[in-house]
Amino acid sequence: MNKYDNPTATAWFDINTAAETWRRSHDSAIGMDKTLKNRSRIEVQPLYWPADDPDGNYAEKLGFPGANPMTRGIYPTMHRGRTWSQRQLIGLGRPADFNRRVKRILASGATALSIIPCNSVYRGQDCDEVDAALLGTCGTVINTVDDMDICLQDIPIDELSIGLNDPSPFTMLAQMLVVAENRGIDWTKISGTSNQSDYISHFVANHMFYRLSLTGARRVLLDTIEFLAEHVPNWNPLSVVGQHMQQAGATPAEAMGLTLSSAIQYAEDCRARGMDPEKFLERFTFFFDISISFFEEVAKFRAGRRIWNRLVGERFGVTNPRAKRFKFHAQTSGCDLTRQQPMNNIARVTVQAMAGILGGLQSLHTDGYDEVVSTPSEASAKIAIATQNILKHEAHLCDVIDPLGGSYYVEALTDAMEKEILNVIARIDAEGGMFKAVESGFVQRMIGVSALEFQDQVERGEQIVVGVNAYQEEEEASARPALKRPDRAHMGAQIARLTEIKAGRDRKALATALGALREAARSQTENVFAAEIDAVRAGATLGEIVTVLREELGFGQPLIVA
Amino acid sequence: MNKYDNPTATAWFDINTAAETWRRSHDSAIGMDKTLKNRSRIEVQPLYWPADDPDGNYAEKLGFPGANPMTRGIYPTMHRGRTWSQRQLIGLGRPADFNRRVKRILASGATALSIIPCNSVYRGQDCDEVDAALLGTCGTVINTVDDMDICLQDIPIDELSIGLNDPSPFTMLAQMLVVAENRGIDWTKISGTSNQSDYISHFVANHMFYRLSLTGARRVLLDTIEFLAEHVPNWNPLSVVGQHMQQAGATPAEAMGLTLSSAIQYAEDCRARGMDPEKFLERFTFFFDISISFFEEVAKFRAGRRIWNRLVGERFGVTNPRAKRFKFHAQTSGCDLTRQQPMNNIARVTVQAMAGILGGLQSLHTDGYDEVVSTPSEASAKIAIATQNILKHEAHLCDVIDPLGGSYYVEALTDAMEKEILNVIARIDAEGGMFKAVESGFVQRMIGVSALEFQDQVERGEQIVVGVNAYQEEEEASARPALKRPDRAHMGAQIARLTEIKAGRDRKALATALGALREAARSQTENVFAAEIDAVRAGATLGEIVTVLREELGFGQPLIVA
Repeated sequence: MNKYDNPTATAWFDINTAAETWRRSHDSAIGMDKTLKNRSRIEVQPLYWPADDPDGNYAEKLGFPGANPMTRGIYPTMHRGRTWSQRQLIGLGRPADFNRRVKRILASGATALSIIPCNSVYRGQDCDEVDAALLGTCGTVINTVDDMDICLQDIPIDELSIGLNDPSPFTMLAQMLVVAENRGIDWTKISGTSNQSDYISHFVANHMFYRLSLTGARRVLLDTIEFLAEHVPNWNPLSVVGQHMQQAGATPAEAMGLTLSSAIQYAEDCRARGMDPEKFLERFTFFFDISISFFEEVAKFRAGRRIWNRLVGERFGVTNPRAKRFKFHAQTSGCDLTRQQPMNNIARVTVQAMAGILGGLQSLHTDGYDEVVSTPSEASAKIAIATQNILKHEAHLCDVIDPLGGSYYVEALTDAMEKEILNVIARIDAEGGMFKAVESGFVQRMIGVSALEFQDQVERGEQIVVGVNAYQEEEEASARPALKRPDRAHMGAQIARLTEIKAGRDRKALATALGALREAARSQTENVFAAEIDAVRAGATLGEIVTVLREELGFGQPLIVA
Repeated sequence: MNKYDNPTATAWFDINTAAETWRRSHDSAIGMDKTLKNRSRIEVQPLYWPADDPDGNYAEKLGFPGANPMTRGIYPTMHRGRTWSQRQLIGLGRPADFNRRVKRILASGATALSIIPCNSVYRGQDCDEVDAALLGTCGTVINTVDDMDICLQDIPIDELSIGLNDPSPFTMLAQMLVVAENRGIDWTKISGTSNQSDYISHFVANHMFYRLSLTGARRVLLDTIEFLAEHVPNWNPLSVVGQHMQQAGATPAEAMGLTLSSAIQYAEDCRARGMDPEKFLERFTFFFDISISFFEEVAKFRAGRRIWNRLVGERFGVTNPRAKRFKFHAQTSGCDLTRQQPMNNIARVTVQAMAGILGGLQSLHTDGYDEVVSTPSEASAKIAIATQNILKHEAHLCDVIDPLGGSYYVEALTDAMEKEILNVIARIDAEGGMFKAVESGFVQRMIGVSALEFQDQVERGEQIVVGVNAYQEEEEASARPALKRPDRAHMGAQIARLTEIKAGRDRKALATALGALREAARSQTENVFAAEIDAVRAGATLGEIVTVLREELGFGQPLIVA
């Protein structure tokens, strides 16, 4: 019943002879000394064939989609049944600008949406507290429930899956829940994901998103997970973000290993609170970067899925298949894109997106070709979405589940990546888990070494980047997309509006709500997120909420590792 | 030594049970009735696993690269050793325009070049014989050895592989050989391919390239193959063009089958002339279209390679491995590109190119995003080349030979495509071979049916084409690339130059040479191509040569099949 059981087939002896003959011709043509390693430092052979998997066991290693070990996919139908969500991150300028843009993007085929706030919001500050030059860069200025209401005007928030780029303490989520409440929409109908709840990844790699101290962020996340489990059951409170690790320089295997270690940490924290892993693990999701190292990324996702499936059984005793599913969103990596000859990025994004799709993702963001210099322009955002549509409808990538499954190379590479990822997890375990490993700087040092190594490869020309260290061209300045700056006048209006809103609030109710938030934070037992929603209801702004929690739970100050 | 010999592995009984469980979950989620066929009408299952290849035999079906059956590649090192040639078709306007452009393209990383002539040239007419509006459309006006000399100015023609889009009677090749002679370059140092020598494909699908009658074209091709074998040994006189069949509407399997049937016809014709298959087959090459049906194209190329390798042994008794190599150039298919939202074509071309690369091509042309409306602009040509460079240097597609080999899906699809292709070849055999099958219109009818079928699928929306029958947008006219028309004044100068050259020729020598060409054509024994080179030496133009041969060997008039 397989390639070699057939007694009439050529004997293994002959195959080995043929392999030796090939090896000799290959080596004499190419030289013996050429070794090649992928980004995860795994040596890649020139050819893979059945002998590369001598102990292979289909049932244990691959199995069937939707069943353990889920290597081939977490659902029985995968993309053949339902393709991925097209989730484009957008947000430029004012809430009204965002709303206009998002409606157009939904009309061109996006099936889910994400909101990214402005850099001032990531810093936890209202628009009247920061240098006006910062306003509207990167995303939308969202300070109040009123801003959120405008962002979501005419958008059926109970019908779409919504991703919020919303770091701890999750003010955007609180605002959105209040918007839903005001519109009479039941919270049980709200679905989506908090994309920036992984405070560990922010501490490690992404300073700007890091608002509260490590211990404070840990507290708020667990409160939020508990609150949502009870009141917003279709919301995924946690997206563990491998993207930050990989963008900071971790290799694909390291990024996957560190992400799984973070997920282990969060699961252990939830269990310590008495929550049931069979339940809360159902809502864990992941978020990864997809680099242009095509097969390595496919193998990374397949290995990650297999490890997580087994690990939650082994470490948390989980048997519920829904809680063993490795659900992930992925974004094509901006790190591989170039400022030079920016239209070439369309080809790069296509390769990256294909790797993610063939790796079995559930949701995808494709970068605009100009995303390396700015939030994507409308033209580039349309091409990015069209790229997803072309891959979905024209390229026939979704006809078959796990179409690369069985490839000698892909399976060998999946095994090798699995080994490397498990090795990273073991190193973090030895440090006492992810929380301690980032507190001590261990993780930051690991990533720093890899970042430097890759940079060296580019500088030495071992890794060619078209237009950067090879095939350069003299370009006219006009050929590069300009960094689009938000309109100053518009931002002045936005600040004026905030002032007006602030002035119109019931001061007493606001003070009470913010006081209750402070008390909740101090209490150790009350739920901070519940208190936060009350504060939003009373008109509290992002800046006011973050300020209170920073005072009570500690200011976020990431560790700088030399 | 393989996935199931391991006695500790899960028994087949369990795997079959697991498969049934999966099948039930899949069907209940997706419905039982969904069947899916690829462009070659092969039913595609939702999942492939080892049971899909119960009689598998690695040695017979796959083997090792560079050895029979060459399914995994024709060289022992493939792209790991040497990647493909980047061959971009360009040619716009006058010879000097072409020369300027080609130098820039070589500077941006192309490693081979192709010349496409103007539509007037394809018609076999000089620039002073046609409507001036036709001049310089599609390619370069090349009528004389002088034009060719300008095209190739400062280009090391003995160091590059050159592709000529040069239909029978191969005037461009004759001109290039005379240019080489004038520069003192030995013909044995000239290498490249006649890309439009497959007159059968022109008869079937590509009317404009079709200059001589079927029997006349057959005669000239065989004379040329004989001449080149003796005098220009590194030239590939024959590129059998599946591209025309597929662009006319043949399915990928049909295009491959018909192309192999044409190659069989040409090989039989050469053998009937007494040539040795072990030798002439070394110089046969192929040229295919790569559609966006990703896995189908990979399987098409793998199946074609395996069939050709076996077939030349069985039908022509060939044992020389070099003569069993299925060498092919491929071009991303313009048929899949859209005039609407043209920048999206960059993503399409990327997918197509990847399919060709993973299918093991030797040479690649990537279309410019505006190629659907015009010869590519310089900007789009640069992106097309950069796409190849990105796939070559950044995406790690070339690290491993035949990286998809062993994939349950890809192997099953390769087998299914092989069966379908063999079926097409058998149908052509039953018609008495390709020559007879096109004379009778059998092939044209087969292609017509498929073309209509695909068109219907698009019209019914079963095949979504982004921007065409889905995700349409109202576009400003300015968003579409304009069809670039050659400069009228320049073309006037080109005509004046031809008049001048014609006037300056030695009339007697010219008349003698054209007379000798006419005699050679009449003789049945003299070599027409040798006489043609003499005519070029004496200053004969394209139009003059084609006119003589049309008079003697019959005017090309393709069969119109209702």
